[in-house]
Amino acid sequence: MLTAFHTDLYELTMMAGYWSAGLTQPATFELFVRRLPEERSYLIAAGLEPVLEFLEQVRFTADERDWLKRLPQFAHVPADFFDGYLANFTFTGDVWAFEEGTAAFANEPIVRVTASLPEAQLVETALLATIGFQTSVATKAARVVSAAQGRSVIEFGARRAHGLGAADQATRAAFIGGCDGTSLVEAGRRYGIPTSGTMAHSWVEAFPGESQAFEAFGRLFGDSAVYLLDTYDTLRAAAGLAKSGLRPSVVRLDSGDLPSLSRQVRQILDAHGLEKTKIFATGDLDEHRISALVSGGAPIDGFGVGTALTTVSDAPALGVVYKLVEIERQGQRVGVVKHSPEKQTWPLRKQVWRTESRGRFVGDLIAADDEAGPPDAQPLLRRVMVDGRRTSPPVSLAVSRSRCRVSIERLPNAVKSLDAPDQYNVTTSATLESRRSKA
Amino acid sequence: MLTAFHTDLYELTMMAGYWSAGLTQPATFELFVRRLPEERSYLIAAGLEPVLEFLEQVRFTADERDWLKRLPQFAHVPADFFDGYLANFTFTGDVWAFEEGTAAFANEPIVRVTASLPEAQLVETALLATIGFQTSVATKAARVVSAAQGRSVIEFGARRAHGLGAADQATRAAFIGGCDGTSLVEAGRRYGIPTSGTMAHSWVEAFPGESQAFEAFGRLFGDSAVYLLDTYDTLRAAAGLAKSGLRPSVVRLDSGDLPSLSRQVRQILDAHGLEKTKIFATGDLDEHRISALVSGGAPIDGFGVGTALTTVSDAPALGVVYKLVEIERQGQRVGVVKHSPEKQTWPLRKQVWRTESRGRFVGDLIAADDEAGPPDAQPLLRRVMVDGRRTSPPVSLAVSRSRCRVSIERLPNAVKSLDAPDQYNVTTSATLESRRSKA
Repeated sequence: MLTAFHTDLYELTMMAGYWSAGLTQPATFELFVRRLPEERSYLIAAGLEPVLEFLEQVRFTADERDWLKRLPQFAHVPADFFDGYLANFTFTGDVWAFEEGTAAFANEPIVRVTASLPEAQLVETALLATIGFQTSVATKAARVVSAAQGRSVIEFGARRAHGLGAADQATRAAFIGGCDGTSLVEAGRRYGIPTSGTMAHSWVEAFPGESQAFEAFGRLFGDSAVYLLDTYDTLRAAAGLAKSGLRPSVVRLDSGDLPSLSRQVRQILDAHGLEKTKIFATGDLDEHRISALVSGGAPIDGFGVGTALTTVSDAPALGVVYKLVEIERQGQRVGVVKHSPEKQTWPLRKQVWRTESRGRFVGDLIAADDEAGPPDAQPLLRRVMVDGRRTSPPVSLAVSRSRCRVSIERLPNAVKSLDAPDQYNVTTSATLESRRSKA
Repeated sequence: MLTAFHTDLYELTMMAGYWSAGLTQPATFELFVRRLPEERSYLIAAGLEPVLEFLEQVRFTADERDWLKRLPQFAHVPADFFDGYLANFTFTGDVWAFEEGTAAFANEPIVRVTASLPEAQLVETALLATIGFQTSVATKAARVVSAAQGRSVIEFGARRAHGLGAADQATRAAFIGGCDGTSLVEAGRRYGIPTSGTMAHSWVEAFPGESQAFEAFGRLFGDSAVYLLDTYDTLRAAAGLAKSGLRPSVVRLDSGDLPSLSRQVRQILDAHGLEKTKIFATGDLDEHRISALVSGGAPIDGFGVGTALTTVSDAPALGVVYKLVEIERQGQRVGVVKHSPEKQTWPLRKQVWRTESRGRFVGDLIAADDEAGPPDAQPLLRRVMVDGRRTSPPVSLAVSRSRCRVSIERLPNAVKSLDAPDQYNVTTSATLESRRSKA
């Protein structure tokens, strides 16, 4: 559960500063990614629901206020900041955002927050960490699922996650990105994601022999049993199992030369009338290895993906930023631009418009919020929170997952390619460019 | 807070299976890393305290048991497993472990669990995720802190962490690894880690001009104010601040050519009698960039490190494994060995002995638990839990941090080197080798 203290200290010092200086007017921040990580040609937005939940419930407890008051940095901050302002604090801002499962690209604001300056500032850290990580994982999952071309993909990475809080978030995002299930039990209970599991090597080793281990598992778990073959010798295990009379639904390969082993195991199973037994593969898989297995015709029916997915090991940090783009001064909205080298931003509130043609996305336009969009284009930033309350009930994971599937279907094939993908066409409006140069 | 459900489903199916098959005898698992990640020549063990806390409190709630009972996989598991065994479940095993902050190497068991087989199996996922991630971060922090050669290092990575649960764990581990503080407020409150913060670009932009922004901040925060210089133009900001009469304690550089900017800012400050004002640098720093800045003589007094530390971006997953090494059969301890290619393990319980000479570690010996260690060597696996209870009160972070500092001091210089380090000398005992070949 996120609390108000899940934030960087500077958000709190700045809050105190804004409050003391009387800067409590409305301001707008936008969350976006300046450049996509290498090997990414699109993102899948995720993490919005937990963020909205956080915004609805964020408060400062008496304990937290007392703790803060005693920090040396806050020695000169008036008591009324803690006992008045923070004691009554709730988030009362408006939020516009890409819905979870929507494809997104560099420089597109995927969340836009308009709130009193101290409120909008406080929530920066939680928004960046939550949206950044879940978007990262949903994107990776979409790549892995695409590579599997319809074969089942299960997320198996809890043990390698950055702690089990990260595992929980990763599981949720991986499901949005298209995974069919997870090994993490808590995610099954909390989110209703299908849970699945096999057996560990320790199960096989705990018995005096492999056949006894298989037999005991099969007796208890029947059709839901998945038999792990590589504890001692994969082919011997496959042959033993095939002859055992257990009629396994699924066997699992976890090491060795998967293209060759999967073919040999398939032959052994088929030779014993086990044509319906499925082969499930695990072991340091990612989208590239899966793509090679699939295109090489390996008879594998499903994949368990752990580390690559849960830690997004090839791009473990997504460079999301949360930038002030507009502030009210004397009742006027004023655009804010940062001129640091390579870190420019466009001023004022923006909207992103997506144009489709014959069931495919053809391009996005980043425009000022007060411009009309192109004819037939859809606005991607939707109003999801007004005055600190959601505009509609929480969206189910199934809906977000299905939105992701549609996004992937509609992306141009050349953009989806794993190798040397094309860049998707994103332009900025003339109005926006002219405001930047004038700002 | 970790629960029993923060585990992979197969741990629970195997528990049910062991229980059904009567396999509830003592078994021993060891947690270790087969190979260090590239660019790592040592590890700093971390994550033990949260694991012990988890082991002391892990239970199955009535809700959890009901949920599990309704899972299709558990359809044939007798009700007594849920209502009897799980309802009364507590962890009653023994744990031996490297204390937090201890240097560790490949193949050294850093945690050893002996418990009834289902108990030892259940906790696998939580142990791997917690010890794996925190060890990863503590190790990275030790490298970064070593590179800073006595300059202050603050962990600033919450916004890039894999969610804020990961941020919390990373902060704790980074402090053990030698960081001086964190930006994460919750970590300050929960762990007593010194918190620090500066100001964001949005602070500067929220005011009509930079000088007003600096003045408002300085008035409220006095000596604890850190002034961010790069919102518009670093050198102009430095000059403006130097002439403002604010007497800043610390200024922060966040972009641009740090070696050159830090020298120019130092000159500007000194020219205005601000010799005591410190320069703090941030912006995609890691041990290599810090080492280059320090060896190049850049006048920087402290570093804020975010992404590289919190996501361990160059090695985001540590390949920790948790392997069954021993099981009791007919009252005898039997060694367990897995023969899969490249995944061999040594059977039976082990101990690790470290030899020092003239204040330096000279080598480790991985031996069987029932062997005598070398004369003058210290055993690194300490008994930290007996029958599910800690053998001593929780160790403070300060103690673990100081143990880490001593570990780093005593590592051979050639092993600590950032570039092409030597491998530390770790051997396995003849007894262990002979048992492996016989197993």
